[in-house]
Amino acid sequence: MTAQPEQTGKIIISVDAMGGDAGPGVVIAGIAKSARKNPDIGFILHGPEDELRKLVAKRRVPEGRVVFRDCPDVVTMEDKPSHVVRNGKNTSMWSALESVRKGEAHGAVSCGNTGALMALSMMRLRKLPGVNRPAIAILWPSRNPQGFNVMLDVGADVRADAKDLLQFALMGASYARNGMALTRPRIGLLNVGTEEHKGRAELKEAHALISDFAEQANFDFVGFVEGSDIPGDKADVIVTDGFTGNVAIKTGEGTAKLIGDLLREAFSYSPLSRLASVLAITSLQRLKKRIDPRRVNGGVFLGLNGTVIKSHGGADATGVSAAIKLAFTLAQSGFAEKLAARVASTADLAQDVAQSASQTGK
Amino acid sequence: MTAQPEQTGKIIISVDAMGGDAGPGVVIAGIAKSARKNPDIGFILHGPEDELRKLVAKRRVPEGRVVFRDCPDVVTMEDKPSHVVRNGKNTSMWSALESVRKGEAHGAVSCGNTGALMALSMMRLRKLPGVNRPAIAILWPSRNPQGFNVMLDVGADVRADAKDLLQFALMGASYARNGMALTRPRIGLLNVGTEEHKGRAELKEAHALISDFAEQANFDFVGFVEGSDIPGDKADVIVTDGFTGNVAIKTGEGTAKLIGDLLREAFSYSPLSRLASVLAITSLQRLKKRIDPRRVNGGVFLGLNGTVIKSHGGADATGVSAAIKLAFTLAQSGFAEKLAARVASTADLAQDVAQSASQTGK
Repeated sequence: MTAQPEQTGKIIISVDAMGGDAGPGVVIAGIAKSARKNPDIGFILHGPEDELRKLVAKRRVPEGRVVFRDCPDVVTMEDKPSHVVRNGKNTSMWSALESVRKGEAHGAVSCGNTGALMALSMMRLRKLPGVNRPAIAILWPSRNPQGFNVMLDVGADVRADAKDLLQFALMGASYARNGMALTRPRIGLLNVGTEEHKGRAELKEAHALISDFAEQANFDFVGFVEGSDIPGDKADVIVTDGFTGNVAIKTGEGTAKLIGDLLREAFSYSPLSRLASVLAITSLQRLKKRIDPRRVNGGVFLGLNGTVIKSHGGADATGVSAAIKLAFTLAQSGFAEKLAARVASTADLAQDVAQSASQTGK
Repeated sequence: MTAQPEQTGKIIISVDAMGGDAGPGVVIAGIAKSARKNPDIGFILHGPEDELRKLVAKRRVPEGRVVFRDCPDVVTMEDKPSHVVRNGKNTSMWSALESVRKGEAHGAVSCGNTGALMALSMMRLRKLPGVNRPAIAILWPSRNPQGFNVMLDVGADVRADAKDLLQFALMGASYARNGMALTRPRIGLLNVGTEEHKGRAELKEAHALISDFAEQANFDFVGFVEGSDIPGDKADVIVTDGFTGNVAIKTGEGTAKLIGDLLREAFSYSPLSRLASVLAITSLQRLKKRIDPRRVNGGVFLGLNGTVIKSHGGADATGVSAAIKLAFTLAQSGFAEKLAARVASTADLAQDVAQSASQTGK
């Protein structure tokens, strides 16, 4: 079964309709939103076909924009990645990746279990030649003109050595160029201080490696940055291991949420503060929109043969639509091919640099 | 030279007047504030005596509450810790710690260079028997009834193995009991997920060790927690290595600051939003007070023979006064002695547990 004739010339996004916290309803609502806004996207939808057809009809997704792949099984949030890799062949997640692997879609989007999605992606799509550890990159609200910084890895793997961090820098630069139209992104390496003698041994080694590659890979290396620079304007791309990155974004999210809750409490404290909140509502909504996580929904898996986007499990229709838009933007820019070429051109050289560095005891 | 007779019966805090971003003026202003609020504190003040005497007179610190130790040198923010350890004998920071070492003060407070303060503290005060790595503990705004969580280590060392993390749990529990009056604090171990199979190898080992000690050390171990739990209500004490902890708090601080700035921008957008901001000002100040970092100013160095508190380099008088209050509270509760006893009683046992675990390949 191939894409229908109506899909010709379109950018095709493969969507795992299952596995989100709120079920397939919001995923289809997101698709409907994207389909209305952008006539150049076609969808391949994976999940129980009968159920999905009803939802597509209900949401009035325009004719001929969706084809279906019937899959009986669903990956749940509780499923262990190793279990899904062995037994997940009939799941919508597996099927969604299969469309990318076979080349019938330009990218995949799923709201499902992150660990399982990464494990399946690595097994089915395989790592790009030259990449040791794939990474998950997210966008984080920042003071930069583009409004967001890229940060990676935020949880594909809990470890990263110096060469992995170099790959993250190359992949992050490529993502910032293609996803955010920054011609010469500034890369920062996350550490506990900005002095060159600080931090863990692998960070000093990575500092030297990334420095060596900056010119050739067309990015600016701003050196070490700190946690406060993740929402700052010193760098566009923040490079770190998946353990640190995951803790950092969850701390930032948790702190933002606490402030939001306390702000609501503060405004409901007295009749006067409730009146103020009515007058302030436009201002507060303007702020909310500026840092709305739904606008930047979507962790991109980098370092694989194909683009996979992990949408937040709790995403609503706006969030799903944002993840689809990101997949579309990246596909349109030819990101997957450019990234593969970039990594391939630097992989051998990185190998040489690392070897000579370890030989000279640098 | 010993404390003056007026100081008898008081709790004596040794204060390094130099090294803060704004100079000794704000430090003395903070001391004046504390002295007026609390008649039971006496101060030993370290720095250039002539300059300090003038500031003390200007701020009208009550008579007989301050004695001086004249020191010509100052540790700057740029000084490397190793340099200060070798050449810092005439600095106010060294002298401030000396008062604790000699037993003439119950604790020390400094706004100076964190790395130098930790290095000097380790050299002059020495680690408690049974402690391998000291830790810096801070308070973080949270949803808990006490309003704050303890987090450690936030930057004493970039590494921590399983036994260090156990020590952090014991020290953090003791700090929460004595500094925040929580009789049975809940301890969480920071990881990238809450499932027991997740994360780095040393975290799984630490999970088992901390579990084993919970009953004996009179705390609840809630297991793995995530970055979002640092401002949450699942645990009172968050245990992590100094690299991760440092990145987490700086990310949280940076995110909070970004939201504050954007909130101000949102409220100055139009005449109506400016009007709303006038009406909202009490609500916003209530929020600001709730999460004001100055209220919880002070990283406590744990695991040394003596209490050392690092006040923020940019602290104002309110911040310095908060750090002094924390030193006072801890001294009054006999924290240093209780912590030493706690660590000593568990150190040998931890050794046994770790050895038998490594023998059985657990």
